[in-house]
Amino acid sequence: MDQPDRAAAEERSAGDVGSRDKTPRTERGRRTLRKLLDAAAVEFGECGFHDASISAITRRAGTALGSFYTYFDSKEEIFQALVRYMSEQLRDHVTPIVQAAPNEIAAERIGLESFLGFVREHREIYRIIDEAEFVDYASYRRHYETTVERIRQRLEAGAARGEIRSDVGEIHAWAIAGMNVFLGMRYGLWDADADIGKVAQIANDLLANGLSPSDR
Amino acid sequence: MDQPDRAAAEERSAGDVGSRDKTPRTERGRRTLRKLLDAAAVEFGECGFHDASISAITRRAGTALGSFYTYFDSKEEIFQALVRYMSEQLRDHVTPIVQAAPNEIAAERIGLESFLGFVREHREIYRIIDEAEFVDYASYRRHYETTVERIRQRLEAGAARGEIRSDVGEIHAWAIAGMNVFLGMRYGLWDADADIGKVAQIANDLLANGLSPSDR
Repeated sequence: MDQPDRAAAEERSAGDVGSRDKTPRTERGRRTLRKLLDAAAVEFGECGFHDASISAITRRAGTALGSFYTYFDSKEEIFQALVRYMSEQLRDHVTPIVQAAPNEIAAERIGLESFLGFVREHREIYRIIDEAEFVDYASYRRHYETTVERIRQRLEAGAARGEIRSDVGEIHAWAIAGMNVFLGMRYGLWDADADIGKVAQIANDLLANGLSPSDR
Repeated sequence: MDQPDRAAAEERSAGDVGSRDKTPRTERGRRTLRKLLDAAAVEFGECGFHDASISAITRRAGTALGSFYTYFDSKEEIFQALVRYMSEQLRDHVTPIVQAAPNEIAAERIGLESFLGFVREHREIYRIIDEAEFVDYASYRRHYETTVERIRQRLEAGAARGEIRSDVGEIHAWAIAGMNVFLGMRYGLWDADADIGKVAQIANDLLANGLSPSDR
């Protein structure tokens, strides 16, 4: 076993009251934690949960094995943290882009396009979120519930501004989430050459105007 | 080990030319195969691929262990067959209902409602199809590609009849598939009390008319 990463261990014990709070207190600690999570994304994405190992994660992160145990007790625990981390990374990638949109219809188009771009850059996200269904169902469900709740809130805000139909709610938000996840799989993950701006445009026109003939 | 199911073995060798064609030739053989696949759905659905066992599948099916090897060489092989079987069961459940619809918009509503009903009756379908992503990616991908291709064909037929917009294609079909899969997870699998007719109606109104305010 490697020596524990003393700096990380000290910083943790310095800041902690309860032994379960492993939140890093310093910028250095936060950097180590991010390095571990980024390495875990690659390791779980390439190997899957069962074949992934803690020592491979620390090797990929370039940290001592002890640093891992400063922040996590087990492979299960870093996997759970990783699902939340990827969910938050995705949110932080998409949210500012969506908020800058001129209206809610455009927000959904730009949100989908930026999601497709995120998938291209983080191809492991599908495997990791999807494997959570088998490794940590609560994390899997929470990822989708929080994603859908954000969509629902922006739909309702758009409705309040009169930009979209007034009766939007949770069912519409789940429908949009599913649409985006499947388009991300097909045109982000499987097809590296698809024009994601065009995919988002076509899907957004369906979302805005529906299937009915335009000359109704 | 149990004795082989002689009747099944004989019928197979009677009908077979190549040793890899394990298609049953008699009604009795087809019944045995269906019993094995139905038992596999329960076993994989309850235990997951890694913990599922061939002997538990034959126990659940009430068949001899030899019957299993009449039709399958391995746990991987029956899992692969099961993904295709569930995909076809779903198709056979939804298709006649969809084909009886008066127009393409109604077909999508009735198709979604019958899918939600199917999920309620076959709760294991999510776990099995989703686990295929890790056990047999080609089957996972084929399930969605064939499902989406059916949607695309009925969209194009509806467009040709002038019932929906004329520019529908593959992107629209993937969007609808994703919508349906997510609504099935949320309102079919997670929420046994949701009014699936109402969910399908609201989602179909979004699909037909879009998010734009109705007074455009």
